[in-house]
Amino acid sequence: MTVNFRYAQEKIKLQRTRLQLIKDVSKEGGGGLSTNQEFRDAGAEEWGGTAARGDFDRDYEEREELTIERIQEMLEKRQFKELKDELENNMYPVDLADILEDVNEKQLVLIFRLLVKEEAAETFSYMNSDLREVLIGALTDSELEEVMEEMYLDDTVDVLEEMPANVVDRLLMVTNEEKRMQINQLLQYPEDSAGSVMNVDYIALNKEMTVEDAILKIRQVGLNRETIYTCYVTEKKRLMGAVDIKDLLTTGESRVIEEIMDTNMLYAHTTDDQEEVARTIMKYGLIALPIVDNEHCMVGIVTVDDAMIVLQEEETEDISIMAGVNPNDESYFGTTVFEHVKGRIPWLLFLMLSATITQMIMNSYEAAIAVMPQLTGFVPMLTGTGGNCGSQSSSLVIRGLAVGEIEFCDLFKVIWKEIRVAVCVSLILAVINGLRIMVMGQGDVLMALTIGVTMACTVIIAKVVGCSLPLLAKKVGLDPAIMATPLISTLVDISTISVYFAIVSGVFQLGA
Amino acid sequence: MTVNFRYAQEKIKLQRTRLQLIKDVSKEGGGGLSTNQEFRDAGAEEWGGTAARGDFDRDYEEREELTIERIQEMLEKRQFKELKDELENNMYPVDLADILEDVNEKQLVLIFRLLVKEEAAETFSYMNSDLREVLIGALTDSELEEVMEEMYLDDTVDVLEEMPANVVDRLLMVTNEEKRMQINQLLQYPEDSAGSVMNVDYIALNKEMTVEDAILKIRQVGLNRETIYTCYVTEKKRLMGAVDIKDLLTTGESRVIEEIMDTNMLYAHTTDDQEEVARTIMKYGLIALPIVDNEHCMVGIVTVDDAMIVLQEEETEDISIMAGVNPNDESYFGTTVFEHVKGRIPWLLFLMLSATITQMIMNSYEAAIAVMPQLTGFVPMLTGTGGNCGSQSSSLVIRGLAVGEIEFCDLFKVIWKEIRVAVCVSLILAVINGLRIMVMGQGDVLMALTIGVTMACTVIIAKVVGCSLPLLAKKVGLDPAIMATPLISTLVDISTISVYFAIVSGVFQLGA
Repeated sequence: MTVNFRYAQEKIKLQRTRLQLIKDVSKEGGGGLSTNQEFRDAGAEEWGGTAARGDFDRDYEEREELTIERIQEMLEKRQFKELKDELENNMYPVDLADILEDVNEKQLVLIFRLLVKEEAAETFSYMNSDLREVLIGALTDSELEEVMEEMYLDDTVDVLEEMPANVVDRLLMVTNEEKRMQINQLLQYPEDSAGSVMNVDYIALNKEMTVEDAILKIRQVGLNRETIYTCYVTEKKRLMGAVDIKDLLTTGESRVIEEIMDTNMLYAHTTDDQEEVARTIMKYGLIALPIVDNEHCMVGIVTVDDAMIVLQEEETEDISIMAGVNPNDESYFGTTVFEHVKGRIPWLLFLMLSATITQMIMNSYEAAIAVMPQLTGFVPMLTGTGGNCGSQSSSLVIRGLAVGEIEFCDLFKVIWKEIRVAVCVSLILAVINGLRIMVMGQGDVLMALTIGVTMACTVIIAKVVGCSLPLLAKKVGLDPAIMATPLISTLVDISTISVYFAIVSGVFQLGA
Repeated sequence: MTVNFRYAQEKIKLQRTRLQLIKDVSKEGGGGLSTNQEFRDAGAEEWGGTAARGDFDRDYEEREELTIERIQEMLEKRQFKELKDELENNMYPVDLADILEDVNEKQLVLIFRLLVKEEAAETFSYMNSDLREVLIGALTDSELEEVMEEMYLDDTVDVLEEMPANVVDRLLMVTNEEKRMQINQLLQYPEDSAGSVMNVDYIALNKEMTVEDAILKIRQVGLNRETIYTCYVTEKKRLMGAVDIKDLLTTGESRVIEEIMDTNMLYAHTTDDQEEVARTIMKYGLIALPIVDNEHCMVGIVTVDDAMIVLQEEETEDISIMAGVNPNDESYFGTTVFEHVKGRIPWLLFLMLSATITQMIMNSYEAAIAVMPQLTGFVPMLTGTGGNCGSQSSSLVIRGLAVGEIEFCDLFKVIWKEIRVAVCVSLILAVINGLRIMVMGQGDVLMALTIGVTMACTVIIAKVVGCSLPLLAKKVGLDPAIMATPLISTLVDISTISVYFAIVSGVFQLGA
């Protein structure tokens, strides 16, 4: 408890220093960008507007942005004290982690050692794994110990999962016994489960406590918790209810927690899928969702910021799969050329070989093609249009499934809608294309009609196949995203070419 | 102030009733699903696990899920008091809004009138616009007035934007003067701007206040604010700093706000793009971002739950555009067939007509095709593989741009990476396809080599075009998502066919 209060004091002192510092700068009439606006100015071009500045907020705003150039300049001039101050008061850990990617190893270690330990730990958790390894190699055991102590447990687990075994050993060696046990526990949850993204630091209250007791408890332990916005009521570790900090503050202090707690709260299990947990947090507008184990004991919370990251990752994964790329957890640049090839080749190979079917169909009409070679000119247009139609339908359905708007039971409703859309679309396309054929002298009315009928069949088949395959995939437990453009367009190619040559060889009496 | 305290009392009473009720049910030994688990059970199939239940949490958990069937049954039996209780204590507004879509008009109005006003307002804000119109037609002026009073201002604005003019007039008539002015203000912000999604209810503190004063103020006004987790320090309305509720609670009560406030906080302008605001909230893990006007006066906040919705909408929009569908704000089923056609036809038409170029190229090789008709059999495979390769690259780059990982200045880095990937991929594809051609007797070594070289050129062109067009689009201010599969595959079709026929007519001396 005393320790926590010490932190609080420390923090206040820092804040004071900061205010003082800003005022000094503004008195000296220091120009440059305003601190508050650093993030706006960095993205000013994108944001469209120019950052507004007035005299009124001088006292608080005058501070030059801490860029990589300024940091390196200060390092060269050995202005360590000034740099330390600026790093504390004029830099966000997530931005610093970006900057550290572009400095050399010596500077990296130097800068990292200037950080106060909370910020060091947070910056460390935002770094990429290469940078972390360099840093771990350079820091002393006691420095590492401090970082490990300050990091939230979920971040620690993320770090450990990405490190080679010898580094993990070293990190675990400098971690205290209790935390090591918690880490081992978390590492055992399956990948992509709620347990693997949850945070074990939350505020637990008893239902017998008064509101006053509860607020006192928050005062004591709050600084070590990632979020205090919602507190959880447990009895022998079992989750009984939730109390929002707002309710605690707006209620009489003598009331008992049991009276004001919400017993109708949502929760999830450690083994639940992280995406479902994130979607629940989003749907109900929650700040955090409590996670319980099989005995209904509360073991952690998933917070809204982690939920946002989960959703972004899942959406990136969906977009990759929809483009025929096996997803990995790394970023685009973080993925090596070899891994990119590995992720892309399976679908390309499978689809290329599937196209053999198309080829065999066309080869069976070789004689017809030899007689009327101009027929083949229409093939890319027909397969292209079919592919685009199928891709429109499948993408909309895949997205509808992902956000929970469409379900398997809507199958016939979706198909009926797509058929009506397809009829309208194909009529418009067929008429315009028919006119084009005649105007450009590529054929007579019969040719225009033939292509038109093929177009209509193609569009309708493409839309029905495109909308139903994702739903069927979902039903049999596959990821609907695999039923996207690449696969759909290959299937549509096959059907388009079959339909096309069947129709033209009938109409023009070419015989296969 | 007195009003606020009255609400607090009311809420506590409700919570007590709820607890009491649950205990009664469990004493009667009522079976059925547990309340807490209703949301899990509803999605049990998807979630993969079975909901764990034990005896330990009986007191709090025994409550049957309030399904549409049970609601309708209670309405028929005229058990209004019981239904009112259940609606208060066993139902989330977002779920109720879903259920209300499936009841008839009479039941809709009946159920809505049973809701306590806070829940009525929240349910109303989750409804679709058709349902809202029905309800507005059925409610009395004073009932509407209550709903309008209880709704958060950002939700009110959303409702008004979707209503026909006569309904808007009626709604504004029952709104008090002050709120009407605020609404008019909000309606003037451009669509998709931070101003249009912000909430004007936040807690403003003065820097001279002590922590004790601040907590007292939160107690007084907190219940009417959407979020109290972060409070903002203003001076003559100008944004000076931010204080987290955690800092207020963990700090000595006599400290002055100026000492503990964070002056280095992030903020955005009313005219900033809502997606950028949402991405900032996500990047920095914020609960809310303050929004200021051109005079740096604070006018509202964008909260993390709204940011999540903005991001989901933007991602749905991106996926639509990437599939060649002009996005609209409605859901899949909320969009009429005519609107679906309108959204899909422009790209289909444009791409179909662009395919005329492909056709003209093929027609110019008519003589060659007549001599070797089997050449055309390779066309769908080559264009398909090219399209898939291009679509892989463009999708990864579009996503990288959306999440801020890739920027225009990375153009050459991206192209270099894609070229290396393309070389590896094309080698693998060409060799395997060459073997297939010979094994299946579709051609000799020369044919296999020719197709292999074409394949390699196609893949490299596709990957370079696919990765650079989204970046170039971004540079000239277009949405990178339009440079996705449909457009890329049409462009790749043209280049593939040009390359293919140029190579084969050279190798087999066919002459155009």
